[in-house]
Amino acid sequence: MAKFKVVVAYQGTEFCGWQRQKSTKKPSIQETIEKALSEILTEKANIVGSGRTDSGVHALRQVFVFQSGVSRSPENIQKGLNGLLPKDIRILEVEKVPGRFHPQHDVKEKAYRYLIQNGPVSNPLLAHYTWFFPERLDVKKMQRAASCLEGEHDFAAFQDSGRKANNSVRTVFHLKSERLPDSIFSTKGLIAVTIIADGFLYKMARNIVGTLIEVGRGKMEPMRVKAILNSGDRRLAGPTAPACGLTLLSIKY
Amino acid sequence: MAKFKVVVAYQGTEFCGWQRQKSTKKPSIQETIEKALSEILTEKANIVGSGRTDSGVHALRQVFVFQSGVSRSPENIQKGLNGLLPKDIRILEVEKVPGRFHPQHDVKEKAYRYLIQNGPVSNPLLAHYTWFFPERLDVKKMQRAASCLEGEHDFAAFQDSGRKANNSVRTVFHLKSERLPDSIFSTKGLIAVTIIADGFLYKMARNIVGTLIEVGRGKMEPMRVKAILNSGDRRLAGPTAPACGLTLLSIKY
Repeated sequence: MAKFKVVVAYQGTEFCGWQRQKSTKKPSIQETIEKALSEILTEKANIVGSGRTDSGVHALRQVFVFQSGVSRSPENIQKGLNGLLPKDIRILEVEKVPGRFHPQHDVKEKAYRYLIQNGPVSNPLLAHYTWFFPERLDVKKMQRAASCLEGEHDFAAFQDSGRKANNSVRTVFHLKSERLPDSIFSTKGLIAVTIIADGFLYKMARNIVGTLIEVGRGKMEPMRVKAILNSGDRRLAGPTAPACGLTLLSIKY
Repeated sequence: MAKFKVVVAYQGTEFCGWQRQKSTKKPSIQETIEKALSEILTEKANIVGSGRTDSGVHALRQVFVFQSGVSRSPENIQKGLNGLLPKDIRILEVEKVPGRFHPQHDVKEKAYRYLIQNGPVSNPLLAHYTWFFPERLDVKKMQRAASCLEGEHDFAAFQDSGRKANNSVRTVFHLKSERLPDSIFSTKGLIAVTIIADGFLYKMARNIVGTLIEVGRGKMEPMRVKAILNSGDRRLAGPTAPACGLTLLSIKY
């Protein structure tokens, strides 16, 4: 049996997320890949992702692994998958890894980026990749609040109230809010929130962004975010930002 | 009766193009806007665009006009339209113009840009906005060929063979092939072909790009493009590049 590590990019709009959902007719990314992989390997394939992404969330470099006894080269598997998969899922890399490699336990860093269109009218070419928020946002204030969250903390206040982790301590290595130039579609007022951490609680990235937005629009003082973090109370943080603005950028092992 | 000039952006993927087509179930951009405008004006609205765009072609600043006797401010019309239109059509500007203004006859310059993904694997986040062309392209050669087409010429060799214009002389002010950085999705190998002209024959932009691609992949010498231009023979030029890579950038009056 050989173990393969695969790097995959996807446009999440037409999927119900990484994992299968009962409540939707949209396919999951995982099942779409497993179906194509089973055809290629001519055996039932199961893949294990580095973690889930929600419906509408995109990925530039998601990672999954699978095991197979079938003799196929990584290049051959990559070409085969890209030939069968829809255009909104693309396999970027395939490599053999040692059997002990685990796509979840061995994660050292994950980077997510959230994009906000902050201007009078949305650019429709970025509608699937951004949250359109026309109210004026003070990015400097958002950045002051973001700095409070860097470091090792209990992020219970920013996890989904319906799915609590046993241990909600995570280390945020980098959290930055900044205006981003758009060299392709000339979108004005694009704001990027980039979060790099050793792991993310369920909806943590989107809850952090929703809270930073409250700071940016002047409804919350930047230092209030520190108090919310310390409280561990989800009800004090801002609303969950919509999924479409979120992109999984990369994973370090 | 007042005349209004409107600037509109759209993501063309879900439409059959600017104008209504018999052979498709997708709505046209024009009819979608006319329906929303008729609701707002409470009278049947007809809009006249600066020109057509094909199915799948996008626009950052397309222009159309309409006339109405109904008393509504430009701001009010813009807000009303953006409230009714789907998210992939956004009204950027509305202003009153003199009755003599004509959105087609008064065009001084139109700018189109064509995007090519030239790398081993397509970035799915740009799939709707680019032509994925994995074969290696020599952009310097493409640029040498592009230069041959600048100036006032008869572009008969680059117009659609099925829909010939009475006068196929146009002036290309600017035609540039270049590698473009992608600051949002980190796409490598992005090539942009930007064409600014006083007008475009049907499929001229996509036929020029299809021909430049033949040069870039080494199937055609750059100077051959000059000979094709002089021949006026559509059969000598390259294939029509797919619509999805094309974006109408702007129009000058």
